[in-house]
Parts: sequence; C-alpha cells; structure tokens
Amino acid sequence: MEEIITLDYGSGGLRTSQLIESILVPAFHNPTLEDLGDGAVLPTMDGPLVYSTDSFVVTPWRFPGGDIGKLAVCGTVNDVCMAGGQPKYLSLSFIIEEGFLMEDFKTIVNSIATTAQLAGVQIVTGDTKVVERGKGDGIYINTSGVGPQRAAGLSRKAIRPGDAVLVSGSVGCHGAAVLMARGEIPFAGELLSDCRPLHQLSAAALEAGGVRILRDPTRGGVATTLNEFVEGSALTIELEEDAIPVDPAVAAACDLLGLDPLYSACEGRMLAVVSPGQADAVLDALHQTSGGEHAAMIGRVTESRPGHVVLRTALGGSRILGKLTGVQLPRIC
Amino acid sequence: MEEIITLDYGSGGLRTSQLIESILVPAFHNPTLEDLGDGAVLPTMDGPLVYSTDSFVVTPWRFPGGDIGKLAVCGTVNDVCMAGGQPKYLSLSFIIEEGFLMEDFKTIVNSIATTAQLAGVQIVTGDTKVVERGKGDGIYINTSGVGPQRAAGLSRKAIRPGDAVLVSGSVGCHGAAVLMARGEIPFAGELLSDCRPLHQLSAAALEAGGVRILRDPTRGGVATTLNEFVEGSALTIELEEDAIPVDPAVAAACDLLGLDPLYSACEGRMLAVVSPGQADAVLDALHQTSGGEHAAMIGRVTESRPGHVVLRTALGGSRILGKLTGVQLPRIC
Repeated sequence: MEEIITLDYGSGGLRTSQLIESILVPAFHNPTLEDLGDGAVLPTMDGPLVYSTDSFVVTPWRFPGGDIGKLAVCGTVNDVCMAGGQPKYLSLSFIIEEGFLMEDFKTIVNSIATTAQLAGVQIVTGDTKVVERGKGDGIYINTSGVGPQRAAGLSRKAIRPGDAVLVSGSVGCHGAAVLMARGEIPFAGELLSDCRPLHQLSAAALEAGGVRILRDPTRGGVATTLNEFVEGSALTIELEEDAIPVDPAVAAACDLLGLDPLYSACEGRMLAVVSPGQADAVLDALHQTSGGEHAAMIGRVTESRPGHVVLRTALGGSRILGKLTGVQLPRIC
Repeated sequence: MEEIITLDYGSGGLRTSQLIESILVPAFHNPTLEDLGDGAVLPTMDGPLVYSTDSFVVTPWRFPGGDIGKLAVCGTVNDVCMAGGQPKYLSLSFIIEEGFLMEDFKTIVNSIATTAQLAGVQIVTGDTKVVERGKGDGIYINTSGVGPQRAAGLSRKAIRPGDAVLVSGSVGCHGAAVLMARGEIPFAGELLSDCRPLHQLSAAALEAGGVRILRDPTRGGVATTLNEFVEGSALTIELEEDAIPVDPAVAAACDLLGLDPLYSACEGRMLAVVSPGQADAVLDALHQTSGGEHAAMIGRVTESRPGHVVLRTALGGSRILGKLTGVQLPRIC
C-alpha cells in the first residue's frame, strides 16, 4: 500500500481490490460484505422499510467529538430512526481526493466501523472513487441506510394543538464544534460535537407512545426544523427560550461569532412532537436512556400564529423564528 | 431561482427547500418522495433484498450517449440487477460545486427522471450538498438502490468447467465515448456510450435459466471483471478474440490511443457465465430482448490455467489477460 491515495485506487483494478481487501473488508467484517458482489443480499425484513441517504462534506474532516466517518454513520442512522425505522444495513461510498493520506483514510474507516457497531448496523455494500488533486477536498462520504419500520404514521400532518415539543439534549453543539475545528472561534473550551446515533433514544420515545413526528435538527438547526413542521399549516410552535438547553460553551462560542444556537446544527439530538397526555412519559423515557439525560420540554403547539415558530424570550417578549436563510455554516455535515 | 448553484442551496434552509420543491419533487413525482421526511417508507417487499451503491464522478458530465444523471441511474440499477435483484427504489444524493449552472443541473435531473422511468425505478429519498468553488468538479452524484431478489445463489463459486461466457453486446463503448468527450480522440464518428439499464436483459437471462453469475464490466472492463470471476480458483476463462463484439469506432479509437477495448468500461453491457446446457437458451433470450441483439458467446470456462483469463487470438496464439493495473481511464464513471 502506498502512503497516499493515488488515482489508481479508484481505477476499479488491482489497487481498488487491495484497498477493499486489506482495509475495508477487515474493518467491517460481515458475511454479506465479504461476498463482494455488485450488490449485497439482505435477509428478509418483514413489513415496510425505511430508507434514507446523505452525503457528508464536513470540513475539516476531524472535529472535537468526531470525524467525517462517525458523522457519516450517525447522519444516516439518525435519518432512518427519525423516519420511524430501525436501521440495520448501510451502504458506504467514498469520493477521495488524490493525495489523501492512507493513514487518515484508515482512521476514518475505523471510526465508521466503531460507530456502526455502536449503532447496531452493518456496512454491507460500498464504492470508492478517487478524483484528481483540486477536484475534491480530502474526502467526501455518502451513506444510505435501510431497516424495518418501527412506527408508522409519523408525519407533520399528525401534529395537533396542545402537543408538546421535546428535545433530547442541548442544541447547536455540532455546528459550534466544527467552527472551533476551523479556527473560527479563538477558544478551546470543552466544546464537543453532539454527534451520536439516535437509535436508542428514538426507540425509547416511540415505545413510550404518543409521538407525532421525530426529526434531528441538522443543517439549519432547531429553528429550521421546527419551521418545517408547521409551515403552510394552521399551527404554531411556541418555544420557551428559558427551557431550551444550550451548553454554556456553545452559547459563548455563538455569541462571539454573532450566531444563534437555534440555527446551529446538531448531529445527535432529536426533536419530538408528542401528544399532551404522553409528553411526560416520553420525557421520562428519554431521561432514562443514554444521551437523553438532559432532554427537555421546550414548547407547545398552538394556533396563535399559523405557520410560524415563535420564541418567547426570557424577558417576556416574543419573536418569530424563520427558516435559516443564507449560509450560516457551510459544510457543517 | 438563481442562474447558478450557490452555497445557499446546500445550507439546509430556504434555498435548499426551493431546490427540492421546484426542481426535484416535480421531476421525480411519487407519493413516497413527496412526504419529504428524513427517510422514505417503502412498501413491504417479500423475501431477501438486493442493495447496492455507487458514486459517479465522470468527467465531462455530458458525453455522447448520456450524461452523469443517466449514468447514476444505470450504474446502480445495473449493480442491483447483476446481484440478482429487481431494482425498485433509488436514493439520490448530489455534491455540487458552487457556480454550477442551474440549467445544467435541471438537464441532469431530467435525465435522471427519464432513465429512472425507463428502468422502472422510483427516486424516493435524497440529499443535496454544495461545496465551494475548487472543492469539487461541477457535480458528483451518489445513488443507492434496493429491490427484491429475483435469483439466489449467483456467485463466482457457482462457476464450473465447461460453462459458457456470454456478453450482451459490444464492449468498451462507454470508456471510448467519455475519452471522445474529453477531446482525447481526434475523431468524431458514431461513438456512443453503451450506458443503459440492464433490468430487462438480466431478467431475460435469469428466466432462461442456468446462470451462474452476472456482472457488468464497468471500471477495468471485461478483462478485469472476468479475472474477478476466476482469481484464486482452479478455473480458467478462455476467450476467443474473434467472438468478442467490438464496435469498429471503438476499436479505431482505442487503437489511436494505444488502449485495449477489453479494459475499457461498459455501462450497459452484461457478462453472464452460464451452464453448458443453457447457454443457447440464454443467448436466444438475450437476442430477443432490447439491447441484447448483438449478444455473443465469447468463451468457455476450463481448467487449463488455474486462476487466469486467457485470450485466444485471431492468429491462433494465446495470451494471459490480467486485471487492470494503473489508471487506464480515470473518472470514467
């Protein structure tokens, strides 16, 4: 193996086989992948399936609390979970820029393997392309994921006035951590990305019952995601600023940059809208699940300002939170 | 909409929604996609599934006979078919370089929609990222695909001495067409990529029976793919040079560049190893199916040179065809 990734490794020939056989198959070892066909054969899964994909272009590829490999697993695992599925199988595809260090590639592959194990998913099929220097930015990763449906009918259409809005933990950590890794924050506190798989938290919420919709607030943050829940509807989401958990380091970092944590991406937090009668049960279930210790009820669904998200501030005022416009944080995921 | 793709369109905010709602959803209209959740819910599919992924980085994005959109659908559809599946659902993910023309993006999206319809698959979930100028090369596309298994047990392990080796049409057209689009061939003949979905040809072959393994010879071409069938085994594939269909324009183009059509990529051709008793039936079935009119039996499985592919030349000699080494054609798909 060479010390850097050269164009050969994406040729589909001998070098590509070497990369697959000496790095990828050993890292992800499972019988489905080892067959090395053009596609994987998945065992029968009963009932409807949930299916999702994301490409990851985060820069830099390593950040406090994770790297692009961990992110690529969590991002797709979480999308499948949020859509009501139990993720079981992932595809994995690399676009690597010529000159990327083999050592860094191995680090990323190990991170993918570790996170996949944590999330209970298998990498079963993949692809590797290499592009010339200057035609990429180190490494881009695509994953897709599939698994059986755990809960049907999760939809914004299920949301009703009186419902509670819950979040599984403090908001905006991932975006702030990536900015710190870029050196845009002159500050080296305890700022870690929240990047983590949400399979256990989503299962706990769904088991407690009454869940209308789940979503992880990635690009565009909590404010943008909540807007997607109510836009064009007769409903309003009213948030209580005081109730929203924000890590002090994230608040400080955002303050320095003139950013709002409510628009900063999370990669391991879950928003849930829950029927009024079940809200406490879901909150309890989250509190008892790893990663949900700081879950909070942050607002309610009303009809006061149809189609809008309103923030009631600590000082008693209120303001409308729109969707993210422009680019607050490019290439955060 | 702006005339070029800006970073905003990948922000996850307002511009991203515009792109999805005004271009992507109308092009791919289907109820699963229109729900716009974090993932798609797929109807129950009985039995095992076949699942595959590929990223596409072809340059230039448009070439004679196709473009990156058509290629992105065919590539994954064909991988699912070759692994014995009937492709039904695709995911679609873009990595677009800032400054890419909106008009070109729409052209590609339309090409994806047309090819998906031709191949009988639905685009059900997707993602769009935008990277800064100089961090990509126009547009990269990832697709993954899933569908029910049509045939079990397709594997190199099923190949036996005496089996016939078939190809569904002339070889190496895609690689040559891309080189022509790059201006590397001073020649403008009737050279078109073979890019096409193989769902009908693979179904026809499987229905005729006796198929040991299917594979589409993409990167590395026919020679590399056939090597993968026998490497490390006690078997040999003996090819008859005279029997291999090569388009005269492809032969001329490869000759000019000192390339070998047997290492040039196909994106719409199928290699099949078939039991001796069924070879004629499979060949007949291919001849009667659109895209298989020029299918041919090109060789046999023997034990003469274990683990190798041997070419018997028109002049009566023979030479060993190894796997592709080095980069004959970077970014051909």
